[in-house]
Amino acid sequence: MSKVKRNIEVCFSPALFSEYSDSEAIVVITDILRATSAIVTAFENGVDRIIPVGTLEEAKAYKEKGYMVAAERDGIVRDFADFGNSPYNFSPERVAGRQIVYSTTNGTQAIHVASKCNRVLIGAYLNFSALCNWLTVQDRDVIILCAGWKNKFSLEDSIFAGALSEKLLDSGKYRTICDSSLAAVDLWDKAKGNLLAYIEKAAQRERLRKNKLDDVIGYCHSFDTTEMIPALNGDHLKNLR
Amino acid sequence: MSKVKRNIEVCFSPALFSEYSDSEAIVVITDILRATSAIVTAFENGVDRIIPVGTLEEAKAYKEKGYMVAAERDGIVRDFADFGNSPYNFSPERVAGRQIVYSTTNGTQAIHVASKCNRVLIGAYLNFSALCNWLTVQDRDVIILCAGWKNKFSLEDSIFAGALSEKLLDSGKYRTICDSSLAAVDLWDKAKGNLLAYIEKAAQRERLRKNKLDDVIGYCHSFDTTEMIPALNGDHLKNLR
Repeated sequence: MSKVKRNIEVCFSPALFSEYSDSEAIVVITDILRATSAIVTAFENGVDRIIPVGTLEEAKAYKEKGYMVAAERDGIVRDFADFGNSPYNFSPERVAGRQIVYSTTNGTQAIHVASKCNRVLIGAYLNFSALCNWLTVQDRDVIILCAGWKNKFSLEDSIFAGALSEKLLDSGKYRTICDSSLAAVDLWDKAKGNLLAYIEKAAQRERLRKNKLDDVIGYCHSFDTTEMIPALNGDHLKNLR
Repeated sequence: MSKVKRNIEVCFSPALFSEYSDSEAIVVITDILRATSAIVTAFENGVDRIIPVGTLEEAKAYKEKGYMVAAERDGIVRDFADFGNSPYNFSPERVAGRQIVYSTTNGTQAIHVASKCNRVLIGAYLNFSALCNWLTVQDRDVIILCAGWKNKFSLEDSIFAGALSEKLLDSGKYRTICDSSLAAVDLWDKAKGNLLAYIEKAAQRERLRKNKLDDVIGYCHSFDTTEMIPALNGDHLKNLR
């Protein structure tokens, strides 16, 4: 293990990723409400692999070939899909031992823009400590990529990026000279005393409320329900270990 | 004056501006260290107009036609230019009554991406209250565009965006449903108790220190030294009033 501290950077939008991209870095994708929380849940519930696809056309083509497909846009399940983006959809009865094709508004696009990097991991509060413990023994730079909302900054993803940055900085193995990491840590510091109250003002919180999809907010902000770390492996996500 | 509150949005990078762009909105460009602080200073010191150009090639072409040119990249004055980006360069002796061509690493590019909007204004702490007072009687949506650093998020511009958002929200004439405005306000809230101490950790603070260009930090974070509001008018900036 090198004694030189590794860098953390936070990228607030997939549209900015080319400015941060480093093919040697590990990229952690986060889309707390709800894609990465759902993916981590699926692995905890025994899914074999998840194939993330960027477009609905690709998702539909997989469906026609007989795959189980989760697909939504703007929080709404697509009619050709088996189910949508709520972590509660990825139950053991439904997903254990299966492969699932998955396309969401923001999360799967974020996975694709990072796919050339050394590793692409799926991060959520649900696998927070497992992810931190794994990262701190890798001796590699880390970029935390917030899926955001249609390429805009999202509060809930940025807060998570701050939580993860703070934890990695506290390990003594990392440093940052990145303004967006520093901002994310400060936002996390504002939020962490009462995370759910803080998230009330986020635009995505309101979108989910309007669509009656906000039953998952508490669950998606729960720490350490699983040890699973989904990682991109060619065209699909598999558990890392 | 409409009773309906107008929207504020904050855009953290020129590369994201197409996601926020609204041709009916007023755009406030900010590049606190140092482009917009320098532009506001130039108008306070009597400059007639400033022609912002995106590329060094354009700046050089103007120089060859006999214009006075301010041009820098990464904080360093270009050899063909008359001077660089420090507000202190724009002294009354040098600029009063003149027109100046100006090209910087980030600030002038930000002006260009916004040039199709209803109004493009130059914002800095130096003209903070004048800007707020003018905006609160316009009855138009406002987008605050942070120049950032090579399309990355910058702390000092985002803090300023938070200060301006907070002031406009406090006026009762504006509302926001934009996560980046909410984040900017929270970052400003963290910073405002001791703005200069907070800015110490910003990457641009360190870049200026390395290049011995950090004599302007305090000046660029001073409130209300001028009533000038530079505004884009065709190909050049003129004082609004």
